[in-house]
Amino acid sequence: MNDPVHAFVPGPRAHVSGPPGGPLSGLTFAVKDLFDVAGVPTGGGNHDWAKANPVPQRHARVVQQLLDAGADMIGKTITDEVSLGILGESAFDGTPVNSAAPDRVPGGSSSGSAAAVAAGLCDTALGTDTGGSVRVPSSFCGLYGIRPTHGRLDLTGLMPQAPSSDTAGWFARDARTFAKVGGVLLGEEPGPLPTRLLLAADAFGFADQEVAEALKPMVARLAKVLGTTPQDEIMAPQGLSVWARAQRCLQPVEAWETFRPWIERHNPRMAFGVAAGLIAGSQISAADQGWAALMREEARARMRHLLPPGTILCLPTTPFPAPLRGQSIPALRPVRDRITCLCAQGGLAGHPQVSLPGATVEGAPIGLSIIGGRGTDAALLAVALAMEDAA
Amino acid sequence: MNDPVHAFVPGPRAHVSGPPGGPLSGLTFAVKDLFDVAGVPTGGGNHDWAKANPVPQRHARVVQQLLDAGADMIGKTITDEVSLGILGESAFDGTPVNSAAPDRVPGGSSSGSAAAVAAGLCDTALGTDTGGSVRVPSSFCGLYGIRPTHGRLDLTGLMPQAPSSDTAGWFARDARTFAKVGGVLLGEEPGPLPTRLLLAADAFGFADQEVAEALKPMVARLAKVLGTTPQDEIMAPQGLSVWARAQRCLQPVEAWETFRPWIERHNPRMAFGVAAGLIAGSQISAADQGWAALMREEARARMRHLLPPGTILCLPTTPFPAPLRGQSIPALRPVRDRITCLCAQGGLAGHPQVSLPGATVEGAPIGLSIIGGRGTDAALLAVALAMEDAA
Repeated sequence: MNDPVHAFVPGPRAHVSGPPGGPLSGLTFAVKDLFDVAGVPTGGGNHDWAKANPVPQRHARVVQQLLDAGADMIGKTITDEVSLGILGESAFDGTPVNSAAPDRVPGGSSSGSAAAVAAGLCDTALGTDTGGSVRVPSSFCGLYGIRPTHGRLDLTGLMPQAPSSDTAGWFARDARTFAKVGGVLLGEEPGPLPTRLLLAADAFGFADQEVAEALKPMVARLAKVLGTTPQDEIMAPQGLSVWARAQRCLQPVEAWETFRPWIERHNPRMAFGVAAGLIAGSQISAADQGWAALMREEARARMRHLLPPGTILCLPTTPFPAPLRGQSIPALRPVRDRITCLCAQGGLAGHPQVSLPGATVEGAPIGLSIIGGRGTDAALLAVALAMEDAA
Repeated sequence: MNDPVHAFVPGPRAHVSGPPGGPLSGLTFAVKDLFDVAGVPTGGGNHDWAKANPVPQRHARVVQQLLDAGADMIGKTITDEVSLGILGESAFDGTPVNSAAPDRVPGGSSSGSAAAVAAGLCDTALGTDTGGSVRVPSSFCGLYGIRPTHGRLDLTGLMPQAPSSDTAGWFARDARTFAKVGGVLLGEEPGPLPTRLLLAADAFGFADQEVAEALKPMVARLAKVLGTTPQDEIMAPQGLSVWARAQRCLQPVEAWETFRPWIERHNPRMAFGVAAGLIAGSQISAADQGWAALMREEARARMRHLLPPGTILCLPTTPFPAPLRGQSIPALRPVRDRITCLCAQGGLAGHPQVSLPGATVEGAPIGLSIIGGRGTDAALLAVALAMEDAA
């Protein structure tokens, strides 16, 4: 099978068919190479990972759920190395092509899954989101993408990174497919529609001005769909950059704990930037970790307060559309840091978030995100459906 | 050509013949893959290095000198990644076999050059020594090896690491070949024999007791050959560990400066441990660097004081024979640190040092080093010849 956008892991393509007659019969899906597929080595985006880990005997739980519902798995997709990356440029496997903006990165770490769906090679694809790895490629590639409530999906058979933030999510080009997959993975039909809409004024202010401008029509449509008037709120009173800093104290420490035994035993090859991030995680002081844990509690309290039943909050998924491919490490450092300012709330508070496509800046997609109360994943899917119907 | 000890860089073997009738006619040599060979990509032990650097148009100066003298080059040898390694285990190319102790590492970073000579695949081989990369594999593989006076050989066409410590050296199984190569590269015949022998009491005390014991007969032979009685001296009054600390403040900073532009532009894959070393280099404070520069001056003054014309100093090349292959990063950290305690003087003071074979501990080779005044490289070769004749 050809791979016009370099979305799939090089080598023979794994293929597993679901039984006929299920709710997802006729749909195809791809799987980020962090999820186990029985009999296929899980690559994890690092060529030394599979050598040190056994070939899985079973499918990851969410893979099994999609197969049981009748969908056909058509391959495993490129991921940023050990899911540590937000832009989708892999030193091992290269950069999947962002069909919507081919000179720009696809976003990561679920880069291949987003690229495969965006190019129409499959109907949906599984990704993971710890610090933005579904949300960012959704925004950059112009897709529907969800980071579910933390703990909502069973992550058995998924290569972990930072367990207190790890989630599994999925992409789709259209809201119907997006919601249908949700019906299977969440075990719940879309709904109910929220009735109150908050607008994260700090996040809109932090995004590029062109982004806030480009998203205005979508916000207006969202208000209309919900039959309400959006109300400005500060999402992070302590500062988006303060929330980001807390997340950058917590997530890399957990990632280092996750990968340290493998690294210390095998001294694997890693992209320099990935190694640097893990080493930074190993050097975060107990004092900084302690502060970050408290700030996480504050962020959780704030999001809980903002999002009672029936309320959603909207914000730009990313502060800008996808950056150009092939930039240097120093050039990309502030890019990643700014993305984290908008995404950190996901890992910190664990609320469900959907990125909706529908806007562009200079021809490149940019997503509008909606966040609901914990457990209201199905309500967000209902909003996606309503937004598509109203488009 | 087969490669029974995995000494050569994988792929087609570079081969260049020297003209007939030269002083090295009939001799074969191998070249560490840090030296340029015209028309062959210089790999540097990292699979992303050659992609970012042009194929050299000329041979490195020392390669050209050996060819001009009639020797035949038979291939390029495996090196620790960007010469940052002392044990010879490469995450990219694997570990060359130490013929003298096959379950142990060969030492690095000139691992393949040492392994090729030790296995009899060539008569001599070029290596480099910044922090011990010729001396350590000489000791571990039971070879003659020289770290020349810093600045003595022309390093044109050599991939640098830490220029204030970088040197090019060579290995041989026998002293005649060893000295013959020296005649060409130094432009000087062996001699004169020193007349005074110092014994670095701190270094012998720091080495494993079995090592000091095993080297006693060689020290006795050395005294006899020179017709003198060895005199105990403290080499590093400030502490071997203090000299090592100074070298570990200086060398990684220079290495980071050397490789930073490539790393920041290309985000290359590197073994985690190599990336960690470079990042450590990027984090050394100006205060530590300033202190280390002063300690280097003290070390230089000390070595100059100890080694007037006609005097050499002997010490164990390494504190122990080669460690076992395949150990973890944490297990190897103290191993590397102890090696640095005996090797740091080379990078700090730049004196010439020859490692002489002839002793074993538990069946594994261990080298006795001799150090002379700066510029007395040929005198050390004369000692090697005399030691072999007296064996």
